[in-house]
Amino acid sequence: MAKKRILSGNRPTGKLHWGNYFGALKQWVELQDSYECFFFIADWHALTTDYDHPEKIKPSVMEVLKDWMAVGIDPKKSVLFLQSWVKEHAELHLLLSMMTPLGWLERVPSFKDMQQELRDRDLNMYGFLGYPLLQSADIILYQADSVPVGEDQVAHIELTREIVRRFHHITKTEKVFVEPKPLLTKTPRIPGTDGRKMSKSFGNAIYIADDDATVRQKMMATITDPARKRREDPGNPDVCNIFSYHKLTSPKKDVDMVDRECRRAGIGCVECKKLCIENALQFWQPLRERRETWDGKEQELLGMMREGSVKAQTVAAKTMERVREVMGLNYGTAR
Amino acid sequence: MAKKRILSGNRPTGKLHWGNYFGALKQWVELQDSYECFFFIADWHALTTDYDHPEKIKPSVMEVLKDWMAVGIDPKKSVLFLQSWVKEHAELHLLLSMMTPLGWLERVPSFKDMQQELRDRDLNMYGFLGYPLLQSADIILYQADSVPVGEDQVAHIELTREIVRRFHHITKTEKVFVEPKPLLTKTPRIPGTDGRKMSKSFGNAIYIADDDATVRQKMMATITDPARKRREDPGNPDVCNIFSYHKLTSPKKDVDMVDRECRRAGIGCVECKKLCIENALQFWQPLRERRETWDGKEQELLGMMREGSVKAQTVAAKTMERVREVMGLNYGTAR
Repeated sequence: MAKKRILSGNRPTGKLHWGNYFGALKQWVELQDSYECFFFIADWHALTTDYDHPEKIKPSVMEVLKDWMAVGIDPKKSVLFLQSWVKEHAELHLLLSMMTPLGWLERVPSFKDMQQELRDRDLNMYGFLGYPLLQSADIILYQADSVPVGEDQVAHIELTREIVRRFHHITKTEKVFVEPKPLLTKTPRIPGTDGRKMSKSFGNAIYIADDDATVRQKMMATITDPARKRREDPGNPDVCNIFSYHKLTSPKKDVDMVDRECRRAGIGCVECKKLCIENALQFWQPLRERRETWDGKEQELLGMMREGSVKAQTVAAKTMERVREVMGLNYGTAR
Repeated sequence: MAKKRILSGNRPTGKLHWGNYFGALKQWVELQDSYECFFFIADWHALTTDYDHPEKIKPSVMEVLKDWMAVGIDPKKSVLFLQSWVKEHAELHLLLSMMTPLGWLERVPSFKDMQQELRDRDLNMYGFLGYPLLQSADIILYQADSVPVGEDQVAHIELTREIVRRFHHITKTEKVFVEPKPLLTKTPRIPGTDGRKMSKSFGNAIYIADDDATVRQKMMATITDPARKRREDPGNPDVCNIFSYHKLTSPKKDVDMVDRECRRAGIGCVECKKLCIENALQFWQPLRERRETWDGKEQELLGMMREGSVKAQTVAAKTMERVREVMGLNYGTAR
């Protein structure tokens, strides 16, 4: 039986962090063997928040590519491509925009959420309202069966399914697009060093690319159980960010020990952090070393991306041919 | 000195009518000698109102092309192209969407107007809100200096100018785009047979393609001065739709005669209509005959359009190269 297809992507807004890894990349790497995977760098999506800092996009594309290589995304197994190199994303987005009710987009929960999260930027842009629609186009252009997402993204997949159904209803067709299903990745919430969700925009992130000294420094500064004021106070690992990190990269015996000892003040925060740091470094070092082998090889990375984009574009072009046909725009092409 | 460039287009939503001719096409034909003209069939724009009738678009593209040929739009003088064949329109629209405030589009007067005019259709679509932005992309992609418009479209050109200024401000550039100026075409308001503005959606239009019998029948049914109930009542040409038609295609001596005689009941409505009809047929016959020479030559028309679209695409691609450069998306292309 043919492998099912999945699609996912990253916005190139900077380096990827632990939250990105445990929330998505880790699953992607695993999915590569059982699915036909399309992973893309969503540079057009990056513009929704970074339109006023265009100089950040190109370097970020390179960082994301290196992060992918670091964690084991494999261009031999998966199709890696760049969104803006496949113009069909823009075309399908435009065509779908004509039949997508404004209210559907205004009701997407992330629209209001993200505006509040990034209050210092003016996000009241036409394209920002439409970004879930661009996401829908991204997905259905490749007839993806599933999209690996966290809970907070399920609403986007539901919107995509509604758009597919509406398209079929309006054009009196079926199966022009596949209705994608969310592939729920159940991952623990990854806190940043300040306890809020790890996020580049909060300045609380530890990056895949961070060197040992930076990881050490960030982890030493990470907030633990705020109620544990003195060494001799018992702590509560359930509210401690360092304990969250232990669960990510420490061996089970260390996790169990900390869980037990912290609660009876058998281990101090400094000692616990040092243990956590050593375990983290052991996990991240080989990934970071693999990442560093790509430094200076930007052209090679782009070339790899170019190859994937040609493959992706071939699939996308086929979908668009059918879309134009059922939308009455089927009079060939100019060239 | 290089000729200035203008750009204009028609939405393929059916045949073009007298209002389209006197409101736009007539000027286009004249402009062909003094400007470098880009005329396009805006098939993507047609979707803003006809997304649920895709079967209408392709035949309408053919009708519009024939209407163009009928009135003297000349592919040897002007670049005639099809919007959906130049994907750069979708790409630029998407890029601009990221930096265009929602409020700018919500305030475009035609948004509310058109929603009211076409109350039987649900136009509350994301793409309908964005259509003035797509228009802006259409214009600036070709660095058009001027856009021939009626009064009601001046707000759209002003929006385009604002978008250009915002783009330059955000990207800290200048002259990536030309700020287009409206080329005001001062044309009389063309009434339909019922006295409202001539419009396909009102069912009151007389088409360039209408044959003699149809023109006769529509003009005979056209509402004249409603206050003139009997032959012996003096009429008021200023409120008579037939008089509006006289001014379009009757010789000056007939216009003057009607203007004088109607007011003193010296000519009756039936006689006046017959005179108007004969003059109209004399004007339209040669155009319609030229139109008919294109019947059955759909492939030839498309071929002509293909040639123009390749020319247009070359210009558009050059603009987009610069746009991608200043927006930080300049890492070459996939192919």
